[in-house]
Amino acid sequence: MNTLAKSGGALLISPSLATALRRMRVAGFATSSSSSSSLNWEGGVSMVQGASRGIGLEFVRQLLEKYQKGYVVATCRNPKEATSLSDLKNRFSERLLIQKLDVTDETTIEESAESVRERYGSLNLLINATGILSIPGVLQPETTLNKVEKSSLMLAYEVNAVGPILVMKHMWPLLKAGGGSGTEREVAVVANLSARVGSIGDNRLGGWHSYRASKTALNQLTKNVSVEMGRRKDPVVCILLHPGTVDTDLSRPFQRNVPEGKLFTKEYSVEKLLHIINNAKRQDNGKFFAWDGQEIPW
Amino acid sequence: MNTLAKSGGALLISPSLATALRRMRVAGFATSSSSSSSLNWEGGVSMVQGASRGIGLEFVRQLLEKYQKGYVVATCRNPKEATSLSDLKNRFSERLLIQKLDVTDETTIEESAESVRERYGSLNLLINATGILSIPGVLQPETTLNKVEKSSLMLAYEVNAVGPILVMKHMWPLLKAGGGSGTEREVAVVANLSARVGSIGDNRLGGWHSYRASKTALNQLTKNVSVEMGRRKDPVVCILLHPGTVDTDLSRPFQRNVPEGKLFTKEYSVEKLLHIINNAKRQDNGKFFAWDGQEIPW
Repeated sequence: MNTLAKSGGALLISPSLATALRRMRVAGFATSSSSSSSLNWEGGVSMVQGASRGIGLEFVRQLLEKYQKGYVVATCRNPKEATSLSDLKNRFSERLLIQKLDVTDETTIEESAESVRERYGSLNLLINATGILSIPGVLQPETTLNKVEKSSLMLAYEVNAVGPILVMKHMWPLLKAGGGSGTEREVAVVANLSARVGSIGDNRLGGWHSYRASKTALNQLTKNVSVEMGRRKDPVVCILLHPGTVDTDLSRPFQRNVPEGKLFTKEYSVEKLLHIINNAKRQDNGKFFAWDGQEIPW
Repeated sequence: MNTLAKSGGALLISPSLATALRRMRVAGFATSSSSSSSLNWEGGVSMVQGASRGIGLEFVRQLLEKYQKGYVVATCRNPKEATSLSDLKNRFSERLLIQKLDVTDETTIEESAESVRERYGSLNLLINATGILSIPGVLQPETTLNKVEKSSLMLAYEVNAVGPILVMKHMWPLLKAGGGSGTEREVAVVANLSARVGSIGDNRLGGWHSYRASKTALNQLTKNVSVEMGRRKDPVVCILLHPGTVDTDLSRPFQRNVPEGKLFTKEYSVEKLLHIINNAKRQDNGKFFAWDGQEIPW
């Protein structure tokens, strides 16, 4: 799953090193031999934002377990409480970096970008996996217009739509520096976790106003950024993903209405989503895919 | 333009009065003869939210000038400074009510609904015409992802998406009470002013992140409410309108890129939009129309 293995070994170390050095120049690094030799770039550098549990955590696990090499930056609000990430860190100490990032606090996003720049110089994959649907006593999916509250609308928008876009803003230079190099992909990929209920055209049930509107806005913002990156010919492709209904803390209070066979395990959903990510081409820039690769209407 | 005129006169006064009395019962009024005789319901009761200038003001003017009867509630943040509305009030003192309503302050929305309930008992038309695109020093349409600021995203969402939905929430009982009675329409109409740049499918230029995402979210929220009202069989149809690029304060800083013949006067755009509103049928519930009646993709 990396260019070294695919191409038959040691002969490719030199281009790989050149790539690493190029990245460091782009990022404004001194290209000292000590810094270059301490890193192995095969597999690329991935960031999973919102990685302490659920789908984000599963992305981290699969990126570490399925690939022999490559680095994963896992971000979450409270690294000290992220016990599952700590367990992975014990197994993949060299390849996993856990960082504090709170999408509602732009300073932490900037700090995270700066830290990735210093350590790796580039990013090849950014997965925005944060998302809120319900918080007991704070945010409850609305069953009727009468229950719509301003505070819920604003909070869902801040976390689900604004947060990922600010992460894209600050990671953009790193993604441009990374592109697809060191991976099997043509380009760097930004994968924002959306949801089918964010589709306006597909909205037949109503309800869940705050969540729906925030995901719809995320769809527009991601599309909007994809247009700019495409126009600039950046080596970056932005896609939106619907993971299906996945057995996580987010969906747990709402699983009783899920038809049999339609509640996916995290493992299954993330495997499907990684397949889409790994096959994303330039012409997929700005598209919205379900877990099975079908495009979802806006 | 009213059932009295259409049906040849005085014979219809009795059904009309019955309608008024029914409305008062729905709204929880005592059906005293004094309150019913003091109001003339022909032409219906319209609310234009965001009426101090631009397209909202023009809606108020045309609703007053083109119809012989009917009431218009014009809301704005600062009635004392709304000189154009005051001028109209001098000409249509009985038919125009100016109310304070700030979409960022839900209390003022509730107070406005209560005041309309006490005075008229129902609404037949609600036009949400507020919208912000740029405020010098506060909000500037973004030309690139690098210029996207959290504060701008949040402000545009609060005013352009959350505001109209909270107005719909509090006016809902009045719209259900009103339906189409006293007008030529089958149903009460909620017309939310959106914009073509809120379309995701039609987004080819990028930029204007805050404005675009807020209008996209407004589209989803309006569609969402339309689904609920449709399921409940409420006599209310919710539509979204793109007014074209209209010569107003909102568009003024951006008019230089408008192709010749594509910058509309307020008079022309509102005439077109009123035509759509007056012809809205139940099957139009949840649709997004341009000024020329063409549907816009989500």
